[in-house]
Amino acid sequence: MAHALQLAQSALFTARPNPMVGCVIARGGEVVGEGWHPRTGEAHAEVFALRQAGARARGATAYVTLEPCAHFGRTPPCADALVGAGVSRVVAAMRDPFPRVDGAGFARLQAAGIAVAAGLMEAQARELNRGFLSRIERGRPWLRIKLAASLDGRTAMANGESKWITGEAARADVQRWRARSGAILTGADTVLADDPALTVRLGDDTPFEPPMRVVVDTRLRSLACGKVRDGSAPTLYLHGPQAAPAAGLSTEFAALPLRGDHVDLRAALGLLGERGINEVQVEAGPALCGALLGAGLVDELLLYQAPVLLGDGARPLFAGLGIETMAQRLRFDLVDEARFGEDRRLLLRPSAL
Amino acid sequence: MAHALQLAQSALFTARPNPMVGCVIARGGEVVGEGWHPRTGEAHAEVFALRQAGARARGATAYVTLEPCAHFGRTPPCADALVGAGVSRVVAAMRDPFPRVDGAGFARLQAAGIAVAAGLMEAQARELNRGFLSRIERGRPWLRIKLAASLDGRTAMANGESKWITGEAARADVQRWRARSGAILTGADTVLADDPALTVRLGDDTPFEPPMRVVVDTRLRSLACGKVRDGSAPTLYLHGPQAAPAAGLSTEFAALPLRGDHVDLRAALGLLGERGINEVQVEAGPALCGALLGAGLVDELLLYQAPVLLGDGARPLFAGLGIETMAQRLRFDLVDEARFGEDRRLLLRPSAL
Repeated sequence: MAHALQLAQSALFTARPNPMVGCVIARGGEVVGEGWHPRTGEAHAEVFALRQAGARARGATAYVTLEPCAHFGRTPPCADALVGAGVSRVVAAMRDPFPRVDGAGFARLQAAGIAVAAGLMEAQARELNRGFLSRIERGRPWLRIKLAASLDGRTAMANGESKWITGEAARADVQRWRARSGAILTGADTVLADDPALTVRLGDDTPFEPPMRVVVDTRLRSLACGKVRDGSAPTLYLHGPQAAPAAGLSTEFAALPLRGDHVDLRAALGLLGERGINEVQVEAGPALCGALLGAGLVDELLLYQAPVLLGDGARPLFAGLGIETMAQRLRFDLVDEARFGEDRRLLLRPSAL
Repeated sequence: MAHALQLAQSALFTARPNPMVGCVIARGGEVVGEGWHPRTGEAHAEVFALRQAGARARGATAYVTLEPCAHFGRTPPCADALVGAGVSRVVAAMRDPFPRVDGAGFARLQAAGIAVAAGLMEAQARELNRGFLSRIERGRPWLRIKLAASLDGRTAMANGESKWITGEAARADVQRWRARSGAILTGADTVLADDPALTVRLGDDTPFEPPMRVVVDTRLRSLACGKVRDGSAPTLYLHGPQAAPAAGLSTEFAALPLRGDHVDLRAALGLLGERGINEVQVEAGPALCGALLGAGLVDELLLYQAPVLLGDGARPLFAGLGIETMAQRLRFDLVDEARFGEDRRLLLRPSAL
């Protein structure tokens, strides 16, 4: 299963909106087939693995990181393919909560006399597909805020200057996190200040699906800044009911209800979920990041910390959290830690209460 | 030599104001004697090692982490003891810059026909005695600022509440850094806000010399807060020329010149150096920490970082740095990193320009 999970991860930059799935077929301690689902519209992991196994699939065990599908989507049901190949046992890391599967795949296998077990390395499988699972189970994408900060928690000078707090290695790593995201979300202030392109630049020819660029811009103040809709990736502006969209290359507009003075962020994420976005990476200023955190919509912080001090006049990580006592502080669990040149990368998730 | 350095470190909490020194005597690949200098007034490392070696010291090599002394201080010169014992070779990690030694120990050994080599593991030896070396070579103690902060670089709430940002394991570790320091330095604001005792509480019976508590209090505003002069350790107030000292248990006062509105911090450190303080640990608020940093007097930051956010209304690490552009940012080298419970400890030193 560990190997199947590794295979699944091969599609980290390409599978979406589908989940990443890997499959290993083993017979008598020997791997006779393996595969993963590369991208939407192409064959599922099980099909690749069965093709490789050929006749050796008969009587074998299939290890699959997600319950095999039971429905005709763009491809025929994998459960049927496993039955047809004569596999005698299927071990799945987890049930697929997608409504058209959700146990139906297991049932189909069992009805055909195949032994089914589920739950092997389930935590790892859930971690891998946390974006897909968030979208299916919660109706909104997994939301990650990427931040580059100093030791004293500052992301830019008072005048907005922020190039560069972190070094090249850290900035290259950010591109990989962009590449796995279905959308890069920012706010009007960041577009106005930095005019960022928000595209993926991996520096090599690794294939990836260009993430959608999403600008939360209640009053559409930032349309004059054009890099974010240069046509190199789809772009979506989320604005309030009063703002007037303007036509543009690969640019879409969606009106959302207000919550206070700004676009309702929960509604914004609901919309992105409906559009098949599994993971959203936020690269925005302290106001939008603070609003997302305050609304309880943040699933993880990807914090790059440079060994520098910018001083107390510089800009904070988050604005408007309204924390006044120690008891109100926001706690996180450190999930992962790595070093990139002189900078450290911390992956943090809100602690369960 | 590595073993001699380890022995030297046994006196981390007790040797001051003397340097930590370790000695290993080896003959034909066999260790025949070892020792370290436990505290001022007691025998030096070489003497303990020679005692253990006895007659086996004849023709042996002595590894010593610092040049053997050549003068009569509280004990007779170690160089003479090594000569008397018939040692044939002395390997020292470094020359002792203390003016009454400073090469005279090596000269004495060489004059007696002993082969002398210096520089083996010198960097490690300098690191171990960085406090002593700072005092002798720069005329002021090594200065470390201890900080406990959130991910967003905050050390306390706006109302001053700060108990506790970090967990028990981190706070226990702080006690060990206090124990190695000759002085714990704070400011009037911290004394007024927290009334800290600034004593060492190791939680076991490890021997240590109680560090001097030093309060920088230009106008002696904080005398009403008494924990810092409860008699459990010596206390020194550093004040401006206008302030009026008050008598107190184990409490001393020293008037210093002003620099602007406050006590001249460089003069303060000069005074502490004169008093034999090797390492100063600063546990103070953002104003004093910022002033020390701005004056270029900080040698290292001991930063405990808790995985929490306190928000942009909370207090910063440093105030008044006056950094306005990225080019002015202060850069540090990460020297050491460790984890204590959920918190991380970073040891950082200002980068060479």
